Amino acid sequence: MTLHHFTPTRYYNTHGSHEPALRIQPGDTVITTTVDAMGQDERGESIAERPNPQTGPFYVEGAEPGDTLVVHLDSLTPNRLSGWSSQILAPSVLEPWYLPRLPWEVDRQDAAWHVDVAAGTASLVEPLGRLGNFTLPIKPMLGCFGVAPYGNQAISTMTSGQHGGNMDYRGFVAGVTAYFPVFVPGALFSLGDGHALQGDGEMSGSGIEISFEAQFTVDLRKGKRSSWPRGENDDYIFTCGNARPLDQAVQHASTEMMVWLNEDYGLNAREAAMVFGYCVEYDLGNMFDPAYTMVCKIPKRYLP
Amino acid sequence: MTLHHFTPTRYYNTHGSHEPALRIQPGDTVITTTVDAMGQDERGESIAERPNPQTGPFYVEGAEPGDTLVVHLDSLTPNRLSGWSSQILAPSVLEPWYLPRLPWEVDRQDAAWHVDVAAGTASLVEPLGRLGNFTLPIKPMLGCFGVAPYGNQAISTMTSGQHGGNMDYRGFVAGVTAYFPVFVPGALFSLGDGHALQGDGEMSGSGIEISFEAQFTVDLRKGKRSSWPRGENDDYIFTCGNARPLDQAVQHASTEMMVWLNEDYGLNAREAAMVFGYCVEYDLGNMFDPAYTMVCKIPKRYLP
Amino acid sequence: MTLHHFTPTRYYNTHGSHEPALRIQPGDTVITTTVDAMGQDERGESIAERPNPQTGPFYVEGAEPGDTLVVHLDSLTPNRLSGWSSQILAPSVLEPWYLPRLPWEVDRQDAAWHVDVAAGTASLVEPLGRLGNFTLPIKPMLGCFGVAPYGNQAISTMTSGQHGGNMDYRGFVAGVTAYFPVFVPGALFSLGDGHALQGDGEMSGSGIEISFEAQFTVDLRKGKRSSWPRGENDDYIFTCGNARPLDQAVQHASTEMMVWLNEDYGLNAREAAMVFGYCVEYDLGNMFDPAYTMVCKIPKRYLP
Amino acid sequence: MTLHHFTPTRYYNTHGSHEPALRIQPGDTVITTTVDAMGQDERGESIAERPNPQTGPFYVEGAEPGDTLVVHLDSLTPNRLSGWSSQILAPSVLEPWYLPRLPWEVDRQDAAWHVDVAAGTASLVEPLGRLGNFTLPIKPMLGCFGVAPYGNQAISTMTSGQHGGNMDYRGFVAGVTAYFPVFVPGALFSLGDGHALQGDGEMSGSGIEISFEAQFTVDLRKGKRSSWPRGENDDYIFTCGNARPLDQAVQHASTEMMVWLNEDYGLNAREAAMVFGYCVEYDLGNMFDPAYTMVCKIPKRYLP
Repeated sequence: MTLHHFTPTRYYNTHGSHEPALRIQPGDTVITTTVDAMGQDERGESIAERPNPQTGPFYVEGAEPGDTLVVHLDSLTPNRLSGWSSQILAPSVLEPWYLPRLPWEVDRQDAAWHVDVAAGTASLVEPLGRLGNFTLPIKPMLGCFGVAPYGNQAISTMTSGQHGGNMDYRGFVAGVTAYFPVFVPGALFSLGDGHALQGDGEMSGSGIEISFEAQFTVDLRKGKRSSWPRGENDDYIFTCGNARPLDQAVQHASTEMMVWLNEDYGLNAREAAMVFGYCVEYDLGNMFDPAYTMVCKIPKRYLP
Repeated sequence: MTLHHFTPTRYYNTHGSHEPALRIQPGDTVITTTVDAMGQDERGESIAERPNPQTGPFYVEGAEPGDTLVVHLDSLTPNRLSGWSSQILAPSVLEPWYLPRLPWEVDRQDAAWHVDVAAGTASLVEPLGRLGNFTLPIKPMLGCFGVAPYGNQAISTMTSGQHGGNMDYRGFVAGVTAYFPVFVPGALFSLGDGHALQGDGEMSGSGIEISFEAQFTVDLRKGKRSSWPRGENDDYIFTCGNARPLDQAVQHASTEMMVWLNEDYGLNAREAAMVFGYCVEYDLGNMFDPAYTMVCKIPKRYLP
Repeated sequence: MTLHHFTPTRYYNTHGSHEPALRIQPGDTVITTTVDAMGQDERGESIAERPNPQTGPFYVEGAEPGDTLVVHLDSLTPNRLSGWSSQILAPSVLEPWYLPRLPWEVDRQDAAWHVDVAAGTASLVEPLGRLGNFTLPIKPMLGCFGVAPYGNQAISTMTSGQHGGNMDYRGFVAGVTAYFPVFVPGALFSLGDGHALQGDGEMSGSGIEISFEAQFTVDLRKGKRSSWPRGENDDYIFTCGNARPLDQAVQHASTEMMVWLNEDYGLNAREAAMVFGYCVEYDLGNMFDPAYTMVCKIPKRYLP
Repeated sequence: MTLHHFTPTRYYNTHGSHEPALRIQPGDTVITTTVDAMGQDERGESIAERPNPQTGPFYVEGAEPGDTLVVHLDSLTPNRLSGWSSQILAPSVLEPWYLPRLPWEVDRQDAAWHVDVAAGTASLVEPLGRLGNFTLPIKPMLGCFGVAPYGNQAISTMTSGQHGGNMDYRGFVAGVTAYFPVFVPGALFSLGDGHALQGDGEMSGSGIEISFEAQFTVDLRKGKRSSWPRGENDDYIFTCGNARPLDQAVQHASTEMMVWLNEDYGLNAREAAMVFGYCVEYDLGNMFDPAYTMVCKIPKRYLP
């Protein structure tokens, strides 16, 4: 139950079997920082490379392939006043005929936001036409985090998979417990890409990107096999499927949920199908990357 | 502003250019009934054919191609005590390897539910294993409604398109205003397939299917062209895309929303992209039919 | 075995339960004409509406739902000297970032081709840059043909389904036998949309469009149920899947082929999978319409 | 122009920035061997791990990011008498309802084939029902080959991407010239996964898997940027798109072809679209992996 204050000195742009940055025990808590999606730290200085540089990896003692890693997100707090965002929509989420009508090539510079954590808002620094200093409530979340993938792979942090990665799901806020399949000894958890807020799908290719102070606590479910990232908050259990098209992301998330209902809640196939069929909700995670993310949720209040 | 009490005498299983059942004026209100997805009325008697038999069509005087039909859902009330549902999951939403593990062929009979409108609940009539008399809060919604499609087509009520149809979106509850593109003179609006409640995606191939007493009020936006069904409630404006895969449904819904923000809210492309990119939310409608449904929502509070 | 000379007097733009144009017997042969995709006849006069106006429907006596209609394409001959084609690529077949680089909006007029049936060539009438009077060998084929769909539907000839329709498959040339599921009494077969030639996918939204003199002979396989269009030439049996995305079109075509190998060639599941897995070939049909077409082929020489 | 005889001593299961096995010059030729998809060598001994162990990587002197690597496949020859194959179809290529009807779980052992290079045939060792000792003509091809990917990634040889990988395209036979984008210094080319023959799509999850003696000759196109694997034989130029769904694989391959026609054949957008639209053909590569492969081909005879 050690509390670690960890200051990162290097960052990775893949989820892979990199040299561990710190070794921790199940039950330990880590307080650390993350840089933003392009590598800027709390002073706005560029200290790491694009895309989505990761703090870590953290080697969790005792984690073995076939286990599930538990990561409780204790707190996620923007640690500077300025965020940035893209101003352009992902071409893949609009009908092809419409694309030439957007101001694509002309002007792709990012927008700057003033992020006021105390007030809980983000506001455009430069007023934009009818929106003025457009102001939105913040909801800090982790865009990209996960473990080392199977098969000695190193997967770019610009995409996602069974190991997690750049899922950009608005539900990964402080208070949530995330679960990841363990594919390599130590799991090799890492995190980054904080967003002050984000629309569903990260349709513009970014949230309001910002650096974080982050605190998380790890644990292990020994011998508990899982196939895709899972999560849990006060109201829901949920599963993440990462693939293209969205249909396949739904297949992964839904199957993982059926297995979960069966194994951990003791529902047989018919009972699980009943809960699933009439209580399920879906959220859209990232729809900008090579892999898209769909999240399958079951309200806890309907589970026996 | 006439109030019509309409008792249907025949039902259609396509959205097409059928003989109008009633001619009404913009501003008129209709109180009528719908049978359930297999054609059972308020006494549980089978009086129409599968799938999703429609009450109507209603010819709205003055509606011409290029207009938008406005349909306010005044009330949607189950008018009997028993609903039914499928007990099986849609094979297309699970990973293929998992399918042979479900009790597919063995037992496909429907489940019966007791629907208590006063209490606001639906309960399994026969207890099911660990779920017992599984009880869920009802949220009555219209599964299938829309207008006659373009090009002299007649499209089965088991699927959906630009004309609406079997979208099975949980957001189409009483209080919502729906908008449909008008493709033929009179629009030829029809409705059916009421659900006492439903999970996202209608993943089991049904909601809790039941007959309704329904009241709606129509209006016209003359000369207002739209391409896909839209809707509005107290908190959101939303658009529906109906296609496969989900990615394309997202494209349709998102493009329709961008056009809406531009035309009706006076946002230029960059402003619309900003609102869209950082405020958008998506809901999943039907994911069982030949065409899937994705819903794109923008919170009204962020619109100028 | 009657030979009918049929001169069409009206054309339909849907596959549906239209009034039969002619009643014929199994074994009968029909010689008729088709107009091009925009309705121009052999004199280049516009006598029908877009899209893909159909000659027919032909009511085949004795055809009942659950039968399979056999249509042998005896001859397909362009009956005028001029064809036309689009000059633009389908936006859905290119990466979204690339679309704004194409001369979309500037110039969408069609190209004119001189079609020389005797020489077997089509040549651009106006020379085009480095291509000059680009000349290609013709291979006349039917773009859009099929039967009335199930469920009292009327489906636009701009798309396709289990009933056939606008499949735009280069393999539907003279000499081929096509098979269609029968969904309504009489089958209601119709045909149109002749192409002098076409690239795979009809990627530009058209082939070289032209009117035809066409001869075909029908037959019936009573009680032989099929689910998707099939075909046969000297070298292959093949099945057509029509859906989006292409993955699902492949699923339909492949499953139909497995059923065919099982039912008609007496192969059990393992034997059929063996033939299928190591001998199968796929062709791409239409990839421009709402529904795409994939064709699954098995060489006859490997079948027992 | 050195001829290297290279005997591999270790094999990799990812395309990544591994230690070079051999350094070669543009113009050099390599004669080497590949083991089969499960790591068995010419004696049938298991000397490497699944999946698709790669011979190499070969560091090509002078290759830099932004160049294109040229790999001419001089010869691909099975170097043993026995091959093996799966007996089961990929679940993702069949309709979900059909899957439970296949003998999935019962019997998944591989089939053994006798491969006779001199006769040019492969025959089942154990007769299988009506197929007997099913005999097919061989057409040796490389299933999995490519270069190190961008962004310090290591991508499993069970899938594919812009770097090539497990494309399982029947067109990669001896005589073909393949082109790969260079993402890292030296390109780091590797090869493996030989098939005596294969059906389109590798629908059963394998070809007839066998070890090879392989000879290839490399070259460089300095400063020639490409984005996806390309190829060329006597009759066609072709491009490979690797993604899911197939629709996106088509987008990648088609855009790469448009760029090729524009840059290397001097066709402007309109001319390229004309050649593309009316002459293009598509082949299906792998449809079993996480990423599918579509191949876009243009006949050379129609190019100026």
